[in-house]
Amino acid sequence: MNKTTIVTLKEIELTDPIIIEGLPGVGHVGKLVADHLIEELNAEKIMEIYSPHFPPQVLVEKDSVVRLVRNEIYAYKSKNVDLLIIAGDHQSTTNEGHYEICNIFLDMAEKYNVKRIYTLGGYGIGKLVETETVLGAVNNTELIDEHASFGVEFKDGEPAGGIVGTSGLLLGLAESKNIDAICLMGLTSGYMVDPKSAQAVLRILCKALELEVDMAALEERAREVEKIVAKLQEMEQGVAPATPDDDLRYIG
Amino acid sequence: MNKTTIVTLKEIELTDPIIIEGLPGVGHVGKLVADHLIEELNAEKIMEIYSPHFPPQVLVEKDSVVRLVRNEIYAYKSKNVDLLIIAGDHQSTTNEGHYEICNIFLDMAEKYNVKRIYTLGGYGIGKLVETETVLGAVNNTELIDEHASFGVEFKDGEPAGGIVGTSGLLLGLAESKNIDAICLMGLTSGYMVDPKSAQAVLRILCKALELEVDMAALEERAREVEKIVAKLQEMEQGVAPATPDDDLRYIG
Amino acid sequence: MNKTTIVTLKEIELTDPIIIEGLPGVGHVGKLVADHLIEELNAEKIMEIYSPHFPPQVLVEKDSVVRLVRNEIYAYKSKNVDLLIIAGDHQSTTNEGHYEICNIFLDMAEKYNVKRIYTLGGYGIGKLVETETVLGAVNNTELIDEHASFGVEFKDGEPAGGIVGTSGLLLGLAESKNIDAICLMGLTSGYMVDPKSAQAVLRILCKALELEVDMAALEERAREVEKIVAKLQEMEQGVAPATPDDDLRYIG
Amino acid sequence: MNKTTIVTLKEIELTDPIIIEGLPGVGHVGKLVADHLIEELNAEKIMEIYSPHFPPQVLVEKDSVVRLVRNEIYAYKSKNVDLLIIAGDHQSTTNEGHYEICNIFLDMAEKYNVKRIYTLGGYGIGKLVETETVLGAVNNTELIDEHASFGVEFKDGEPAGGIVGTSGLLLGLAESKNIDAICLMGLTSGYMVDPKSAQAVLRILCKALELEVDMAALEERAREVEKIVAKLQEMEQGVAPATPDDDLRYIG
Repeated sequence: MNKTTIVTLKEIELTDPIIIEGLPGVGHVGKLVADHLIEELNAEKIMEIYSPHFPPQVLVEKDSVVRLVRNEIYAYKSKNVDLLIIAGDHQSTTNEGHYEICNIFLDMAEKYNVKRIYTLGGYGIGKLVETETVLGAVNNTELIDEHASFGVEFKDGEPAGGIVGTSGLLLGLAESKNIDAICLMGLTSGYMVDPKSAQAVLRILCKALELEVDMAALEERAREVEKIVAKLQEMEQGVAPATPDDDLRYIG
Repeated sequence: MNKTTIVTLKEIELTDPIIIEGLPGVGHVGKLVADHLIEELNAEKIMEIYSPHFPPQVLVEKDSVVRLVRNEIYAYKSKNVDLLIIAGDHQSTTNEGHYEICNIFLDMAEKYNVKRIYTLGGYGIGKLVETETVLGAVNNTELIDEHASFGVEFKDGEPAGGIVGTSGLLLGLAESKNIDAICLMGLTSGYMVDPKSAQAVLRILCKALELEVDMAALEERAREVEKIVAKLQEMEQGVAPATPDDDLRYIG
Repeated sequence: MNKTTIVTLKEIELTDPIIIEGLPGVGHVGKLVADHLIEELNAEKIMEIYSPHFPPQVLVEKDSVVRLVRNEIYAYKSKNVDLLIIAGDHQSTTNEGHYEICNIFLDMAEKYNVKRIYTLGGYGIGKLVETETVLGAVNNTELIDEHASFGVEFKDGEPAGGIVGTSGLLLGLAESKNIDAICLMGLTSGYMVDPKSAQAVLRILCKALELEVDMAALEERAREVEKIVAKLQEMEQGVAPATPDDDLRYIG
Repeated sequence: MNKTTIVTLKEIELTDPIIIEGLPGVGHVGKLVADHLIEELNAEKIMEIYSPHFPPQVLVEKDSVVRLVRNEIYAYKSKNVDLLIIAGDHQSTTNEGHYEICNIFLDMAEKYNVKRIYTLGGYGIGKLVETETVLGAVNNTELIDEHASFGVEFKDGEPAGGIVGTSGLLLGLAESKNIDAICLMGLTSGYMVDPKSAQAVLRILCKALELEVDMAALEERAREVEKIVAKLQEMEQGVAPATPDDDLRYIG
């Protein structure tokens, strides 16, 4: 395995499947949604991708068993919609690898006759997010009206810094293959894993795909993170004592 | 697209065209000039270059539509002079890619029988620039007198650190193909985008090419940047309050 | 030598050898154990691996003689067990090289019909280690009970950050070749070379391999490091004077 | 020029030439010696090496004329000794390139039947050097006695960190081609260009090669650097005013 290697676990027939990509990134928003979908939909793993463009690393799982870091493709079949979900532990650590691995995803898209791709990510704004917001970017303007009706916000030229990594590159590269693609970015502070932002993205995705997905697990994680944030805020305020000892005021 | 890819949009006939290169760099001086020329001359895009040596990134444009980062070649025909303008979002992120992409530009130069190349950039001096200055460097001493007469300054061994990136490399590599090349560097602080320095470079370029180009757009941007600089200077001085409350003077 | 180069020094016959890998890493725990084993068992060097993925560096040895940095394979034959020990000066400096060189180790494993691999390393916890602990991770759950009985601790999902570098990658890549592999990680501060942690790992390894190895040299090094740590702690406490001058207490 | 390119300027016949390598490095000691030798011996340039492993950069020279960064080979013929001197603007920026370019030097060594290589460098000790010292390292112990007699110091295992870059790699790689090689390292602070350390190295090299070389230019540069150091030391002491205003002592 000195080269990027695709391991096909199962050949499957899908009807006009839609691709959903959720790899690690800002706030792990995309990864949280993809992993949650795989869990809740009981999607089936059909492919694994190993690559020297990923870190030279194994992860330790249950029973102290290791496995190489990788990307994975899961398939889901239903009456409403068929899905191919791209999940994984890491994105490429090199620019070259980013292009190579995105092309693998697009080869798969062509093989399965995919007509639409959703890429999911976070949009870090450097401060706590007050109002749940999902920003959109597309490679075809025809996607805008439909998704605006589901609550996606579209703003000319935003994010100003472009979209870096798989979520952006897939949109750009899909265009030359005439595959429609939209990136859904949940606003997030960028400072921590953000299951609340992931819920916002998932809600819109479910509307767009006419899917029903239980959100309890994400809600639970969101509550945990909120508790940690609250504790951190308390600690920060605690640096200047919140309830100073009156007696001390008269000293010095 | 795992390799650098050239997309030819249009075959065009040009008469002894001159290449102008203005990619992002110090103060974005070169990019400002190239983009301004393309706009004002209504130049026609004839080629796009995509490469895994660019960042794995898309830019979000009007209507939230993305496109892959790229370099672009524009053509301009007129009675006076024909031009090939090299513009783009990024320079290569790797040394190897710099050499590869510069060679693509030079292959194009040979194809179009180019006899002269102008590369444009900024020369960062680490402080605000008082007097508009354009420094020159050449790959053939015959270029010096002509351009000195247009106001370009030539100083032995300057810039002392050499010229890094496309603007320098094109000069060095063009020599072996017997193509004359000159780099015009606008003095700039190096701290921000500098449309004023771009104007200085453009003025000289217009003289050299006997071009007339409206500068209003660059002037407008220069005024905006000047306003921001003035505000920043005010804020900095504001750290020590400019109009202290007299009452406070008697306390402590 | 523009490519990774294997220099075979000796062809040797081994009976179901076990591989032990101990390259430089956290606390140099793995390297200390491997180098100690080679010394004490008087193992014979059979292979050297040179690579442009190692730093462009020579080491200066006895008599000021240099040699290229490299990885080395040593062989040891005994009635109880035959060993192939992987030692060296550096791990690969690139991700790609990590994969390439691990595959060289695994090709060797297949050639010698290896059925089990031990990879050795340190597990940095960011503070001084109070109780000697060796954490384990495996690529086959069948290895767990046996090694738990020797004192290896197994904890679900630990280390949480996975295992980076050769010690991890070998486990992950060995799986696809049906070779059992276990990583033994000595807890260590991560701040310095840790011969004490190496002793803990070696003790378990000796039980697992039914080997008897003199530990005096490692013990000696451990004592030296302990002296340095004690001195550092003294110096640190010395910043706030431990025995303040009583007189000073009444001033100010 | 997407690959490392060798430009042969002149075919020359040499009798058992000795290679001297002096590329930029710690204190630019090696480069100073090589450049000085080329100048004083009026050596003739016979080869240029260009490479994408060098920075994508041109240098600006006399008359504002640029040239690509490169390595160069100079030849010198005399009754006593024939030399091939390796000089240049940069070392490789990648590990892989280091190996590739060193192999180009060794191919040249084989072509010219070279039996001995001197690599020159600085050995940074992090403080001003009190006594002129030249440390040696070899790839063949037979070189030690001869060079110790010229004043080279040999210390087991020093430099402890090995020798990084061309000066080290050439020694290591030359061994496999049975070419004797010695690295002469002038002790230097490592904080600035050090012509004094270069003089120390050059003096030993001249003894070893039975060369007579005028040192005036290096001496002049050494005096200039000493003046700058003296000024810096003055400025540093000046932070606490050397001649405080007596009046101020009574205020506060």
